[in-house]
Amino acid sequence: MGQKAWILRMHILDKLAQRIEKANSLLCIGLDSRLDKIPQSFYSDPHPQFAFNRWIIEQTHTYTLAYKPNLAFYESVSGYQALEKTLAYLHEYHPDIVTIADAKRADIGSTNEGYVHSIFDELGFDAITLNPYLGYTALLPFLERKEKGCIILCRTSNVGADEFQNLIVEDRPLWQYVAERVSKHWNQYHNCMLVVGATQPSVLKQVRHIVGDMPILVPGIGAQGGDLAAVLLNGLDSQKRGIIINASRSIIFSENPAHQAQVLQQQINAYR
Amino acid sequence: MGQKAWILRMHILDKLAQRIEKANSLLCIGLDSRLDKIPQSFYSDPHPQFAFNRWIIEQTHTYTLAYKPNLAFYESVSGYQALEKTLAYLHEYHPDIVTIADAKRADIGSTNEGYVHSIFDELGFDAITLNPYLGYTALLPFLERKEKGCIILCRTSNVGADEFQNLIVEDRPLWQYVAERVSKHWNQYHNCMLVVGATQPSVLKQVRHIVGDMPILVPGIGAQGGDLAAVLLNGLDSQKRGIIINASRSIIFSENPAHQAQVLQQQINAYR
Repeated sequence: MGQKAWILRMHILDKLAQRIEKANSLLCIGLDSRLDKIPQSFYSDPHPQFAFNRWIIEQTHTYTLAYKPNLAFYESVSGYQALEKTLAYLHEYHPDIVTIADAKRADIGSTNEGYVHSIFDELGFDAITLNPYLGYTALLPFLERKEKGCIILCRTSNVGADEFQNLIVEDRPLWQYVAERVSKHWNQYHNCMLVVGATQPSVLKQVRHIVGDMPILVPGIGAQGGDLAAVLLNGLDSQKRGIIINASRSIIFSENPAHQAQVLQQQINAYR
Repeated sequence: MGQKAWILRMHILDKLAQRIEKANSLLCIGLDSRLDKIPQSFYSDPHPQFAFNRWIIEQTHTYTLAYKPNLAFYESVSGYQALEKTLAYLHEYHPDIVTIADAKRADIGSTNEGYVHSIFDELGFDAITLNPYLGYTALLPFLERKEKGCIILCRTSNVGADEFQNLIVEDRPLWQYVAERVSKHWNQYHNCMLVVGATQPSVLKQVRHIVGDMPILVPGIGAQGGDLAAVLLNGLDSQKRGIIINASRSIIFSENPAHQAQVLQQQINAYR
């Protein structure tokens, strides 16, 4: 509990800055450890998802700024046990690595308190991804946790994301409106960040212009085909950081996760 | 498993219609069974949330079309155990009552398969609430489960929902655009529904005009202050049904849940 309490007291921007410096890395590894995709050799463990995550962490932690489990792959009794064990393991052995719950949550205000309790207080994540559709007031239970990171979906990497996110509102696309609202009105505790997919480098450039040095989580490198050079060129902030580049399947399900993580960390740093 | 398999094969619209007929009810009870809000007398049970839910179900099932646990209050090992037990209990003893996972999920396509597996296949819910921000293509893993209900957030009941949902896109508010997209392009398997808060009866009227007889889930009665008469007047479809009226805290945390549920069922039917 000592380490965990220490993590909870540190502001997310300080934790990010310290870990970027220490690991010389902007790499986030997505622990999308879907039970039917992990190697069969882990199935004999009483907690296969945790055993797999622990192995990935030990293979890759040297190169890593953050770990980001997607909660879609942990929504069961055994999944939550694996998630608890994964977070406890990180808190104990790698307390300076940033932890992001990729949950994309949003509910009405009082209900969000349930998510805040489980994700921040019980599991001890440093940050969470959130969906903006219900608005600022609904998300206050997250945003008012001043030290925790609130990473708002802006322009996602998936096919068909343009259906609503590119609609024109007040002379600009909805994703731009979201970036402006978050940057100008939601960020009073400096704990907001945005999600912009790697498949949209021109969007990344415009969002960077709007939000200054606010960190941006960039998924879509690797399996989804985003261009790393374009992401770095358009996404870095004034201090040559400010982006968190996520890769999931292309690292964790590769033949050699340690090698893949190191190569990607070095490619990122070469472009910086 | 026999009963569960039967539930999975029936289309959501048929299950809704049969239960509305049998129970003469449009009432959905939200099982927002937050552990620190349930009566202390349940704490001695090894599964307090399940024991509370079972008691609520036994008190209220006669008057109920659907039960809707909000997953925000079950995001833990013990919470998932309670959720599994609650769903198994409903499948065994009340298989004709509709079950809705109030999850408000949305991720990129392949990730949504994780949610589909846990919520539809493992827990056996009949329907789920979804957030539209990532678009139709992302949500296909849900929508392609032809027999399952996909309940898309349109205009939510919370304070501040207007921040994005009321933005004008192509000469109409975003919530209207969402209703049109879902009604005209997402609903090929007739398994889509919408969420419109009870606090917005004029919106409900316009959405009903757009979507024909598509069912609409209406939260916000009770604790959130929505006007029941206005909801019924504006929300009923051509067959005097088509709305699912949810009440959560005002029933489950009342002195007498059975009485509260019966009174609300009768009020709803009086306005029908």
